[in-house]
Amino acid sequence: MESRRIEALVDGVFAIAMVLLVLQVPLPELPDAPTPEAVIAALEGVLPAVGSFALSFLILGTLWMGHHSQFCHIRRVDRTLLWLNILLLLCVAFVPFVTVFLARYPLQPAALVLYGGTLLLGGVFLFVHWGHAVGHGCVGEEVTPEMAEAIRERLSMGMVAYLLATIVGGFVPKVGLVLFACAPFLYMLPSRIDATILEEAAIED
Amino acid sequence: MESRRIEALVDGVFAIAMVLLVLQVPLPELPDAPTPEAVIAALEGVLPAVGSFALSFLILGTLWMGHHSQFCHIRRVDRTLLWLNILLLLCVAFVPFVTVFLARYPLQPAALVLYGGTLLLGGVFLFVHWGHAVGHGCVGEEVTPEMAEAIRERLSMGMVAYLLATIVGGFVPKVGLVLFACAPFLYMLPSRIDATILEEAAIED
Amino acid sequence: MESRRIEALVDGVFAIAMVLLVLQVPLPELPDAPTPEAVIAALEGVLPAVGSFALSFLILGTLWMGHHSQFCHIRRVDRTLLWLNILLLLCVAFVPFVTVFLARYPLQPAALVLYGGTLLLGGVFLFVHWGHAVGHGCVGEEVTPEMAEAIRERLSMGMVAYLLATIVGGFVPKVGLVLFACAPFLYMLPSRIDATILEEAAIED
Amino acid sequence: MESRRIEALVDGVFAIAMVLLVLQVPLPELPDAPTPEAVIAALEGVLPAVGSFALSFLILGTLWMGHHSQFCHIRRVDRTLLWLNILLLLCVAFVPFVTVFLARYPLQPAALVLYGGTLLLGGVFLFVHWGHAVGHGCVGEEVTPEMAEAIRERLSMGMVAYLLATIVGGFVPKVGLVLFACAPFLYMLPSRIDATILEEAAIED
Repeated sequence: MESRRIEALVDGVFAIAMVLLVLQVPLPELPDAPTPEAVIAALEGVLPAVGSFALSFLILGTLWMGHHSQFCHIRRVDRTLLWLNILLLLCVAFVPFVTVFLARYPLQPAALVLYGGTLLLGGVFLFVHWGHAVGHGCVGEEVTPEMAEAIRERLSMGMVAYLLATIVGGFVPKVGLVLFACAPFLYMLPSRIDATILEEAAIED
Repeated sequence: MESRRIEALVDGVFAIAMVLLVLQVPLPELPDAPTPEAVIAALEGVLPAVGSFALSFLILGTLWMGHHSQFCHIRRVDRTLLWLNILLLLCVAFVPFVTVFLARYPLQPAALVLYGGTLLLGGVFLFVHWGHAVGHGCVGEEVTPEMAEAIRERLSMGMVAYLLATIVGGFVPKVGLVLFACAPFLYMLPSRIDATILEEAAIED
Repeated sequence: MESRRIEALVDGVFAIAMVLLVLQVPLPELPDAPTPEAVIAALEGVLPAVGSFALSFLILGTLWMGHHSQFCHIRRVDRTLLWLNILLLLCVAFVPFVTVFLARYPLQPAALVLYGGTLLLGGVFLFVHWGHAVGHGCVGEEVTPEMAEAIRERLSMGMVAYLLATIVGGFVPKVGLVLFACAPFLYMLPSRIDATILEEAAIED
Repeated sequence: MESRRIEALVDGVFAIAMVLLVLQVPLPELPDAPTPEAVIAALEGVLPAVGSFALSFLILGTLWMGHHSQFCHIRRVDRTLLWLNILLLLCVAFVPFVTVFLARYPLQPAALVLYGGTLLLGGVFLFVHWGHAVGHGCVGEEVTPEMAEAIRERLSMGMVAYLLATIVGGFVPKVGLVLFACAPFLYMLPSRIDATILEEAAIED
C-alpha cells in the first residue's frame, strides 16, 4: 500500500515531465506560399529543439526504468526512502528547464553542465535509494546479494555515463552532446537484471 | 506488477498529451461592445484550432484503446516491450506539437505529412509491440491464435488508415484532412476483439 | 481490469484539466515600491481569473464525483461505454479553454453559453453512460432499480442546473454567473446515493 | 475502492502541480559569445525562480506525505471527506500561481501572505479531514487514540509553521522566506507516526 502510492506519484511526475518537454519546441514559421525549400528550412530550424525533446524523453525513460526495477523489489518504505523519492522527483521536474536551456544554447558548456548535473543528481538519489533500501531491510526476500549488486552496477553505469558526458561537455560541448545521446542506448542492451525481474514476474503471475 | 506500472506511465502520458492539446487553442479576441456577428466571427477564427484539438484528442483516444486491448492480455514485460512502450509514448508526447503545426497550417502538405507520420510511427510501435509479445510468450494463455490475429488486424487497419491519409495529405491536403477526421470513426465500429475482451472481463469478475 | 485503466485515464485527464486551469491566472503586476492600495488593486485585477479558476475546479470536481459514483458499480465496459468516456474527457479537456474565455469576458453571453454548453455536454455524456451501463448489464448485481434511479436523478439534477444557467446566462450574464457559482453547492448536499455507496464500500472492506 | 480513486486524483493533482512549478522558471538569456561571468550572472538571475520552484516542490511533497499518512488508515470515504479532498486539491492547484507571484516579488509582504495563506488553508483542510475521518468511524481499527493523536500533532505542527511564517512574512519578508525554507526540513525528522506506519505496512505484506 505504502509503495503503491509513491509509485503513483512517481509515475505521474515522470509522465508530466516527459510530456511537458514538448512545449519547448517552437512552432516553425512558414511564409504565405512556402516553397518546399522554405518548409525544409523552417523544420530544420526546430530540429535542435526536437532533438533535445527526444533525448530528454528517452533519458527520463531510462531513469523511470531504474526506479521501476528497484520498486519491483521494495516491500517497505521508510521516511528516508520517501524523501529520496521526493528529491529524485525534484530533479525529474527540473529536466524540462535544463532541456530548454540546452535546446537554446546547445554549444554552451554551462548548458551541458547544468543538464548533466541534473541527471547525475537524479542518478545519485536513485543509487542512494537502492543502497538504503537494501541496507535497511526494505526489500523483499527474493533479493539475493547478487541481485542487489547487479542493480547497483546498473545504477553506477548510468551515473558514470552522465558524469563523463558532463565533464566532457564542460570542455568540448559537441562531444558531450554525442555522449548524452548515447546514454539511452546503454539501457537498451540486455542486462543481468532482466533475468531476475522476469523470473520474479513469472512467479507473481 | 511489472505491467501495472507501465500502464500507469502510459495512462499518464496519454492523459497529459490529450489535455495539453487544448493549450494551443488561442483565446478569441472580442471588441469592447461586440455585435453578435463579431462574436461569431471571433469564434469561427478559432474553429480550426478547436477542430484539430478534437481530432487529435479522439485519435489519441483510439491509440490508447489499442494499447489497452493489448495490455488486457499481456502477462510479462521484457526489456524490448518496455522500450517499445517508451518509443510509443515519445510519439504520443509529440502529438501536441504536430497538432499545433497542423492547426496553424491546415493546408500545408508538410503539416499533414508530419502529423500523419507521427501517428503512423505510433501505430507501427503498437503493431511491433503486439507481434513481439505474442512471439515471445508474454501474453496470457487465453490468447488463441485467432485472437492474436484479430488484434493484429485491428492494428493494421489503423496503420493503413494513417498511411493512406498521410500519402493523400501530402498531395491533396484537404482530402487528407477529411481522411484523418474519419479515422476515429473506424474505431467506433464493433470489432471481433470486443467479444474476446468482454468474455475475458466477464471471467475475471 | 478493463475498468481500472479507464479510471486511470479519466482520473489523469481530470487532474490535469483541474490544475491547468491555474495557468490562465495572470501574474498581478506591481510597481517598484507599491503602496498597500496598489497591491490590493493589483490583486483585485486578477480576482475574476481566480474566481473562474475556483469555479471550474469545483465543477470539474463534481463531474469527477459523478463519474466516480457510476464506476463504483460498473463491472464491465463495452465499446460504447469506452467511447462515451472518451467523449466525456473531450469536454473535460475543453474546460480550461472555456474558462479562460469566461474569465476574459465574464459578461459576454457567448462566453457563458460556451461555458455552460461544454459542461452540459459533459453531463449528457455522463447521463447516457449510466443509462447504457444499466441497460446493457454492465453494472454489478448490487445495483437495484432504486439505486439506478437515484443516480439517474442526481445526474439529471446536474444537467438541469447547467441547462438553466446556460439559458439564463445567454440573456442575463450576471445571473448566469451566479447560477454557475451555485452549482457545486448542490453537490455538497447529502443525497440518496451516499447511503448506497457507503454500504457497498463497507461490504468491500 | 472508493478511497483508491480519490488517491489517484490526489496523486495526479499533486504530481501535475509539482511539475508545473518549473514552467515559471524563465530561460536565462545569454549574449552571443558569453564570458564565464556573463553565464554566471545570467544563471544568478534565475536563482530566485529556481529557489521558489524547489521550495514549493518540497512543501507540496510534505503536504502529499501528510495526505498519504492519513489515507494509509482511511477505510471509508463519505461526502464530507470527498469535498475536503477537493478543497485541499484546490489549494494545491493554486500553489503554482502563488509561487510565481513569490518568485517575482520575493520581498513583498503581500506575496508572502498569499503564499503562506494558501499553504495554511491546505493544512487546515488536511487537519479537518483527519478529524472528520477519526470522528465518523472512517478509519481502520488499527488506529488507536494515540496514533490518531500523533497524526493530529504532526498536522498541527505544519499549520503552526505555516501560520508563523505567514505572519512574520507579512512584516519582515526576508525572515518569512527563511521560515518557509525551513518548513520542509521539519518533516525530514523522524516522527512518532513513522513507527505506526511501518508496523502496519509490515503487517500488510
